[in-house]
Amino acid sequence: MSSKQDYLNSHLFRIRHSTAHVMAEAMLERFPEAQIAIGPPIEDGFYYDFKLPRPIGEDDLKWVENRMKAILRGKHAFSMREVSPDEALAFFKDQPYKVELINDLVNGREDENGNPIAAPASKITFYTQDTFTDLCRGPHVANTSEINPEAISITFKPPAGAYWRGDENREQLTRIYGTAFETPEQLKEYLDLLEEAKRRDHRVLGEKLGLFIISPLVGKGLPLWKPNGAVLRDTLERWLRQTQIDNGYLPVVTPHIGNIKLYETSGHYPYYKDSQYTPIEVDEEKYLLRPMNCPHHIMIYKSELRSYRDLPLRLAEFGTVYRYEQSGELNGLTRVRGFTVDDAHLFVTPDQILEEFKKVVSLIQNIFTSLGLTDFRARVGTRDPESDKYVGDDDLWEAATAAIIQACEELKLNYHVEAGEAAFYGPKLDFLVRDVLKREWQLGTVQVDYNLPSRFELEYVSAENDRQRPVMIHRAPFGSMERFTGILIEHFAGAFPVWLAPVQVVLIPVADRHFDYADQVAGQLRALGMRVEIDKGKSRIGGKIRENREKLIPYMLVVGDKDIEAGAVSVRLRTDEDLGAMPLADFISMATRLIASHSLELK
Amino acid sequence: MSSKQDYLNSHLFRIRHSTAHVMAEAMLERFPEAQIAIGPPIEDGFYYDFKLPRPIGEDDLKWVENRMKAILRGKHAFSMREVSPDEALAFFKDQPYKVELINDLVNGREDENGNPIAAPASKITFYTQDTFTDLCRGPHVANTSEINPEAISITFKPPAGAYWRGDENREQLTRIYGTAFETPEQLKEYLDLLEEAKRRDHRVLGEKLGLFIISPLVGKGLPLWKPNGAVLRDTLERWLRQTQIDNGYLPVVTPHIGNIKLYETSGHYPYYKDSQYTPIEVDEEKYLLRPMNCPHHIMIYKSELRSYRDLPLRLAEFGTVYRYEQSGELNGLTRVRGFTVDDAHLFVTPDQILEEFKKVVSLIQNIFTSLGLTDFRARVGTRDPESDKYVGDDDLWEAATAAIIQACEELKLNYHVEAGEAAFYGPKLDFLVRDVLKREWQLGTVQVDYNLPSRFELEYVSAENDRQRPVMIHRAPFGSMERFTGILIEHFAGAFPVWLAPVQVVLIPVADRHFDYADQVAGQLRALGMRVEIDKGKSRIGGKIRENREKLIPYMLVVGDKDIEAGAVSVRLRTDEDLGAMPLADFISMATRLIASHSLELK
Repeated sequence: MSSKQDYLNSHLFRIRHSTAHVMAEAMLERFPEAQIAIGPPIEDGFYYDFKLPRPIGEDDLKWVENRMKAILRGKHAFSMREVSPDEALAFFKDQPYKVELINDLVNGREDENGNPIAAPASKITFYTQDTFTDLCRGPHVANTSEINPEAISITFKPPAGAYWRGDENREQLTRIYGTAFETPEQLKEYLDLLEEAKRRDHRVLGEKLGLFIISPLVGKGLPLWKPNGAVLRDTLERWLRQTQIDNGYLPVVTPHIGNIKLYETSGHYPYYKDSQYTPIEVDEEKYLLRPMNCPHHIMIYKSELRSYRDLPLRLAEFGTVYRYEQSGELNGLTRVRGFTVDDAHLFVTPDQILEEFKKVVSLIQNIFTSLGLTDFRARVGTRDPESDKYVGDDDLWEAATAAIIQACEELKLNYHVEAGEAAFYGPKLDFLVRDVLKREWQLGTVQVDYNLPSRFELEYVSAENDRQRPVMIHRAPFGSMERFTGILIEHFAGAFPVWLAPVQVVLIPVADRHFDYADQVAGQLRALGMRVEIDKGKSRIGGKIRENREKLIPYMLVVGDKDIEAGAVSVRLRTDEDLGAMPLADFISMATRLIASHSLELK
Repeated sequence: MSSKQDYLNSHLFRIRHSTAHVMAEAMLERFPEAQIAIGPPIEDGFYYDFKLPRPIGEDDLKWVENRMKAILRGKHAFSMREVSPDEALAFFKDQPYKVELINDLVNGREDENGNPIAAPASKITFYTQDTFTDLCRGPHVANTSEINPEAISITFKPPAGAYWRGDENREQLTRIYGTAFETPEQLKEYLDLLEEAKRRDHRVLGEKLGLFIISPLVGKGLPLWKPNGAVLRDTLERWLRQTQIDNGYLPVVTPHIGNIKLYETSGHYPYYKDSQYTPIEVDEEKYLLRPMNCPHHIMIYKSELRSYRDLPLRLAEFGTVYRYEQSGELNGLTRVRGFTVDDAHLFVTPDQILEEFKKVVSLIQNIFTSLGLTDFRARVGTRDPESDKYVGDDDLWEAATAAIIQACEELKLNYHVEAGEAAFYGPKLDFLVRDVLKREWQLGTVQVDYNLPSRFELEYVSAENDRQRPVMIHRAPFGSMERFTGILIEHFAGAFPVWLAPVQVVLIPVADRHFDYADQVAGQLRALGMRVEIDKGKSRIGGKIRENREKLIPYMLVVGDKDIEAGAVSVRLRTDEDLGAMPLADFISMATRLIASHSLELK
């Protein structure tokens, strides 16, 4: 699908929405005492939340899925009718969640400040298929015959607790997920991808490859990087750092806490209060674990009188920030409570925006392409013309938006514009990157900001010797080292390119008498900066190859009598390809070439 | 002096203590209404705290110093007498601080738990010289004639607020510092060093060279590293990191906060509570900004079942910690509230302690020597045989202490043993390093720890296949990146070795027509990893050389017509030495050689 709106209007969306109702019908047959909550279509399928009289098991699921197929084959029409609120309440008198929903509809809805956001309803819409009627606004397919029974699937993902209305003070319900496609082939492809995703799960690989752990005693959502993970992360960081230095960025280092006044000045406090940790008291002042690096970089900008000749000033930091996430939302490296942003803030004159934006976007493009993430597109977020929440002059907004779009055009970027997706402080561009599993991740972001320069009263001396206000550009290609590494682990299924692999080479001496030669080769490779291990374990040669292949080490160099005689190594790839014996010098020249060029190949 | 105890017993100590009394006498003549507090000798001299009726000025100081010299010349004896508490109170009836001190002596002293630490005194000791009598236990010189009037000096260092009894809830007093030596030459040498220290002040150089700032809005004691400082710090870090990797250390990365339970388990909380920040509440649990990295590294150790074959396991992290310091104690980079420890924790079997200790000490030796910090000695802190505050078996303590001393012997380290200087959890070795100003800093530390392995119940599987407890070694060669960098700035007076210099080369084109050549040379140098700037400013050549020399950039390469013709650069050092024109290739070979070898030389 090219956009969310297209999906909402699609036949597939109606298929999934309708299949959710069919699932609820089958569930009520299996669990007549079940209370039903809501069952919306979602990106990859649908779910329905139930309060069940007992835990659900595999047998139940099997039964329900089969029953759904039978219902679908029954060629039942989906019929809509409007009823009065009283009729609706009478109909659902044994379903308290539905009663609550109907009452809300009748009373209209208010936001948290008491402003009405939905008018009170005088009519309630019901949809019925076969024996099942749901409170629903639709749309649905006309008949269950439009849904291929072989193209549906349901699943229960433990622990899968879902709070009623997402409120952790309300009851916890059982959420059953399902999906439906137009053809069985599409379903199979989807389920295969899911299976593949499970195999690539960064939490599983993180454990197996010794990359990171989450320790309950340290805290939820706070990963600890083990040596292999720390090497991987550091290698990525050094590479991006050097790329940035080559592009005129200047490194800075700033503290992880700051006086609350700093964030009051920036507006991050209390604006983002819900995602911030409680303040720390120091000498009767309050400090926050920083939620953002920007205010710190601004203080460095402000520490000198800047001239137009100093601009663009590009301050870069791998800066760790801390933000609160609900514990149920946490997930390995991809959703955490503390993460390191590959951050930079560019201070530019207004007429430098186009040129700098192009450079930033081009840098991000190169980074993704180097990592084999070649399937990406850009989303340009512009102002919602109906809203007045934005700060900054209209002229500036239009100029900046035009500059972003021109940059996309000149760089021939695959982009689309979404009105209303801008930050309140300026237009932005997000990179949406598809991994090998076809999942789209929002990664790199580039944002123009008129707000912070004004809140902090930033200035530079112009060529005409008067004081002007710079514009800021926020940008982070990876977004977060944690999340990006998590995605890379899954993208590569742990088989990282040689330059990134925590261990690049393992030497496997055939017998104890080959240890010396292995040590000597390892020394030579390490002197060239390569990361090398020697397997001096007791296993036999075949076992050693199996064990090291499991660790996804790119090169296994078996060394025995013949190799020593020839000054050679017998090279086996983790793909199990056997390159045979080659002179050590040849292996070195191959490996160093692939590492230096950040190649994705092994030979 | 070779140790603190020697100083306390020295004649110089008595000279300084006596000069403090003479200063109080002169001050009371200048300010008859002054209230006098205490006046102890300290490392470099002495001070005396006063409550003054008006602010003190330069004129007052001058007058007091001259008057002190006159008193000294008066050849007054220091006489001691014992008086009863009542006599003492009567004598000091107009001096409330003295009254408080006398009452404390009479009542005896208690620690914060109410345990007596000094018995109630029935006699009070007075010392008198000339017209002045002080409450004092001595010792003093016998006569003021033992003090050379030309070898004393006093000073007032604003703001120099000192709270009475160091308690910030009590009155703020005016502290006058002074010093005294045996000869005027020694005083001059000391004052010259002070002058030199002022010139080298890392806070002043930090500002001038764009290394770091302290921003009140971010917070006291929380330095922000500007680009030049960040490059310096990162270069130091990369160097140490590589040295550690070459020595078998494994990097890890862990979060800056942790659940309070982690620190309760380690004992850091509430043991070090006073230096910790208030807890942060997360989901009804408490988290702390971490005061130490050790517990995090322990959780990584504990994440796998370890075998004796895995040991020593050396986990290293440049880990930022946060500790509370009173705001009056904060000082630039050398006393801060957040700092990054070049930390590592070594998990070893008991019989690996000697070997590992030797390796650690030798690594630290090499690091200091590489930086030209060649004047260092080691202090071995052992148990106080009288105390029972220590944890761990006697056998283990003796073995570890013997291992540390044997390591010092084998490495021919200049060391001394101080009983009672051990941590409660194990013996330790501290490096005391003297900088070019002859100031001694306690830097690198190596500590054996039996306590944490036991508190966290760490284990490894021994060769006999049973569970054994490893020993931990804590070590940090620099101690803190902030403090160490601050010391290096002063040690080098900002003129860093080429490999450390934030900017290594500045190209100075003689005229605009030489810009292209300068760009081309800069490109070549940068491709070799060198940090290069080009001065395209409007100043004339002499001005440019002056400006860049002020920035302490090691190499200024002037390029004009003749240089272009010859493919050369005209090399000037920041020392003002002119090496003349040399082929670019020759400059490159000289500079890259000096950088690669971490040389302290410029040619």
